Amino acid sequence: MKYTKYNKSLDYSYTLGITLTIELIKKHKEDLLDIYYSTSFNGESKTLIDSYCKDLNITPIVSDKIFNILSNKENIFVIGVFKKFYNKINNNTNHICLVNPSNAGNLGTILRTASGFGIENIAIITPSVDLFDPKTIRASMGAIFNLNVTLYENFQDYLNSFKNYNIYTFMLQAKTKLHETKFLKPFTLVFGNEATGLDKSYLDYNSVIIKHNNSIDSLNLPIATSIAIYEATKSNF
Amino acid sequence: MKYTKYNKSLDYSYTLGITLTIELIKKHKEDLLDIYYSTSFNGESKTLIDSYCKDLNITPIVSDKIFNILSNKENIFVIGVFKKFYNKINNNTNHICLVNPSNAGNLGTILRTASGFGIENIAIITPSVDLFDPKTIRASMGAIFNLNVTLYENFQDYLNSFKNYNIYTFMLQAKTKLHETKFLKPFTLVFGNEATGLDKSYLDYNSVIIKHNNSIDSLNLPIATSIAIYEATKSNF
Repeated sequence: MKYTKYNKSLDYSYTLGITLTIELIKKHKEDLLDIYYSTSFNGESKTLIDSYCKDLNITPIVSDKIFNILSNKENIFVIGVFKKFYNKINNNTNHICLVNPSNAGNLGTILRTASGFGIENIAIITPSVDLFDPKTIRASMGAIFNLNVTLYENFQDYLNSFKNYNIYTFMLQAKTKLHETKFLKPFTLVFGNEATGLDKSYLDYNSVIIKHNNSIDSLNLPIATSIAIYEATKSNF
Repeated sequence: MKYTKYNKSLDYSYTLGITLTIELIKKHKEDLLDIYYSTSFNGESKTLIDSYCKDLNITPIVSDKIFNILSNKENIFVIGVFKKFYNKINNNTNHICLVNPSNAGNLGTILRTASGFGIENIAIITPSVDLFDPKTIRASMGAIFNLNVTLYENFQDYLNSFKNYNIYTFMLQAKTKLHETKFLKPFTLVFGNEATGLDKSYLDYNSVIIKHNNSIDSLNLPIATSIAIYEATKSNF
């Protein structure tokens, strides 16, 4: 077979399932390499994807082999294969910056919320979990195909490219409460790693805390990130 | 061995790992049945748990057997066994009501946020994912031990017990935006199932929408729930 079990070094990745594959076709057809159908795929969804494929002049490959390799006992009937893409973030709008995110499900969930609240430019400071891991794509529910994501080796590199941005860093040591923060545009909301958060050097920016009681140590990362994005963007909705 | 692989019908469950077991000991010692140490457990955490056990007159059982049965290749050194507990929700404070939640990780994450924002009474309308599934407990990061949770067979049963509560139902068909909603106390925030949300009958209450753009179909359930809890409670922090 042309394709192999996913690993980070490949220059392609997969959408596992109908919904994700439709998002891929709709939003990133230029990066589409192949569509696979399982031999038991049929019904309305098949008719829909058939018509997309026809429009794109793509012939779906019917074979169960790739499903045995890629899907973990899940009921998946369609797989899309796509070339990894890199859309540079731009300076037209607000940003999120994730410093060393380490969990694929969390990263995908954050991308989904960001897209929903209209933040389409995401900076990621490496080392980071793999953006194109099928688990990230799954958790994003396809939102990854709406977004520009750029990786930076360190936070300073990001700052150098976006000098006019108002930087808001989310950390438990901050003094200003989220609901008392005024977000000046264009802004960047910066979040740390799941286990360690942001280090003290990030207190030099507009640092913000999402206050909670001490019955828990912290909020989970996608929860904290999503609450912050909601608060910073809610006046747009 | 006294204990078996977890299933819903057992009257006990497990905390897998140091942090969760410490939360169990601190907050629900009356329900503690046993503590297991793996043979390779040592260091500071062991000293700490040793001292808790001494105070409680419990002798930890050192054996790798239970770890082989319960932990999925993870590095776990401590397991707590506890009797499932049922603390009735009370009418002193605000509530969350989850209608048919279906995912253990999601339920646990919601419990964690609820506890952090001071909502300690949770109603769950069955059918529901198992509250005491070790995956729920893990995702709650131990917050389950701070909370009162009561299961109801239907929403009407819940309402009958809390007639004076102001009911806010979160649904995509609602008209009032979350950030324009005034939450009158005592309140109940009601959320539907992951796949189906709340049905139309819930529009009869104060229905609320968390507005987002149409690049995504919906927010993920713990994200939506957490944003709502944040907004409804932020003035307390």
